[in-house]
Amino acid sequence: MALPPEFALIARHFRPLAGEGALDLSDDAALLSPPPGRQLVLAADAMVEGVHYLPDDPPETIGRKLLRVNLSDLAAMGAEPLAYLMTTALPRGTSAEWLEGFAAGLAQDQRDFGLQVLGGDTVSIPGPACLSLTIIGTVPPGEALRRAGARPADDLWVSGTIGDGALGLAVLQGRLPADPHLARRYRLPEPRLALGTALRGVARAAMDVSDGLVQDLGHLCRAGKVGAVLELAALPLSPSAAAVVEGDPSWLPRLATGGDDYELLFAAAPEDAARVREASRAAGTSVTRIGRFTDGAAEVTLLGRDGGTLTPAQGGWSHF
Amino acid sequence: MALPPEFALIARHFRPLAGEGALDLSDDAALLSPPPGRQLVLAADAMVEGVHYLPDDPPETIGRKLLRVNLSDLAAMGAEPLAYLMTTALPRGTSAEWLEGFAAGLAQDQRDFGLQVLGGDTVSIPGPACLSLTIIGTVPPGEALRRAGARPADDLWVSGTIGDGALGLAVLQGRLPADPHLARRYRLPEPRLALGTALRGVARAAMDVSDGLVQDLGHLCRAGKVGAVLELAALPLSPSAAAVVEGDPSWLPRLATGGDDYELLFAAAPEDAARVREASRAAGTSVTRIGRFTDGAAEVTLLGRDGGTLTPAQGGWSHF
Repeated sequence: MALPPEFALIARHFRPLAGEGALDLSDDAALLSPPPGRQLVLAADAMVEGVHYLPDDPPETIGRKLLRVNLSDLAAMGAEPLAYLMTTALPRGTSAEWLEGFAAGLAQDQRDFGLQVLGGDTVSIPGPACLSLTIIGTVPPGEALRRAGARPADDLWVSGTIGDGALGLAVLQGRLPADPHLARRYRLPEPRLALGTALRGVARAAMDVSDGLVQDLGHLCRAGKVGAVLELAALPLSPSAAAVVEGDPSWLPRLATGGDDYELLFAAAPEDAARVREASRAAGTSVTRIGRFTDGAAEVTLLGRDGGTLTPAQGGWSHF
Repeated sequence: MALPPEFALIARHFRPLAGEGALDLSDDAALLSPPPGRQLVLAADAMVEGVHYLPDDPPETIGRKLLRVNLSDLAAMGAEPLAYLMTTALPRGTSAEWLEGFAAGLAQDQRDFGLQVLGGDTVSIPGPACLSLTIIGTVPPGEALRRAGARPADDLWVSGTIGDGALGLAVLQGRLPADPHLARRYRLPEPRLALGTALRGVARAAMDVSDGLVQDLGHLCRAGKVGAVLELAALPLSPSAAAVVEGDPSWLPRLATGGDDYELLFAAAPEDAARVREASRAAGTSVTRIGRFTDGAAEVTLLGRDGGTLTPAQGGWSHF
């Protein structure tokens, strides 16, 4: 009896990605001997077609984005990648070309980030594709970066540039003129893994910015029972983003609340600023001081370019 | 700024389920110190509304089934449950009552099976609900049950009863008269965890039957490079299933190819039959010898009740 198409699909597209403990993706589960002397770090993020990515995004970048949004969670914990499991719910009729591209994207990023697939599931869905990935990383015991820990007067830092993801989505939706840099930043976030590990023992608190800077900063504040002042004028912008803001200054606060940044947001003692700069150099990832933590209520104060206080309409993205 | 509804939803329904390393589900990832001296066993299964469960199934049983189909993979490896991560893609407008029921089902089965949630993601989907779960268990190193290992002349065993899941689906779809036992077996599979651990060192090969007995037996055969003869007359049937077959004998081969059994299918040397019976007694789970493995091509031969050979129209379920 011939194997049904589901197994051919897995064998053809996903088995080449399988790591040592994956048992060729042909057993009921995978085996993993945890690296001795390390703590495991685990996260799971899902992406839905039309919600987290555009239906006509190239399948290569969809696979890579799925891995990278999860890798970004490892980066936020200061962890190093180890392996992942993935479930894909795909519409019947998904083409072999789409699957080939999707798997090729995963293969490339597996290599680049040093991790392997351990297992998963492939099912059909009478609706949009729904992709879910569980990522596993490791840290030396007790050294993971956590969201709690910021103290009043700590500096507030962010990596890379803010707003490119939200602007990239606007570009791809035709709300802004074509810009390859911005489109790429929406489709291919850059997980700041090297910076995350370099910040172990330096940052007092950290998280990744995925749902909007202001909203995510609120999480850091609540976790640390501190407030924060965020200076919009200090936001690190890419040349593309700076040009957009130059043309329409109303974009600036929207960059602080748009999603899809996947940068690291972290707290460090003012006296550790040189160590932060050193971690940045070691990782090859720029960092910018964009504000400070404060005493009192776990609230985010947004300072505009004129020094006045702003209240954004929405702190960030919510699914419900 | 108020938290968006997504976070309230997670806090209300999922945080009470969180285990020690889950960091209250409010960090970027979870931390897990693997139990020393154990190998980890990992699997991920997804369930889609209208594909793996019926839209009007009670939310309690949907949550429990999601856990149980994954626990069944652990059982097939002889592993003991430890923890899980879960992503839920839910239509906007999913009611608080549905979520309460779903979480209550998870809570009950977490307690009963001794595991805890470590993390996950909650997103919206413009389509049917799509639920994905990654389960983590442990085994003593090198003792996991595997699919490969059956040898010619080994006995072929199965746990529990076969066909109730497929019949339960027919009942719930109105193709068969109401039968609470069958409906429950479709909605609430029973992962054979105690039997799985008792079979470590006894079974030569094992897997769980989820996509249809004949198709899944084919996987055992290919993994072991052996053939198998399956005797339909020996299939263990529940009283409800026996009554259905009595009324319409054409159901019998369809029970061997229907899905949703979640029983253990395994190989053991004929001289180990007494050890298999002892494992069955220790686990409190019935087992039945339903055939034998054979030399030669990795093919499944189906013997009908009259001793003749049958060719089923379809070995089991395929998504594509």
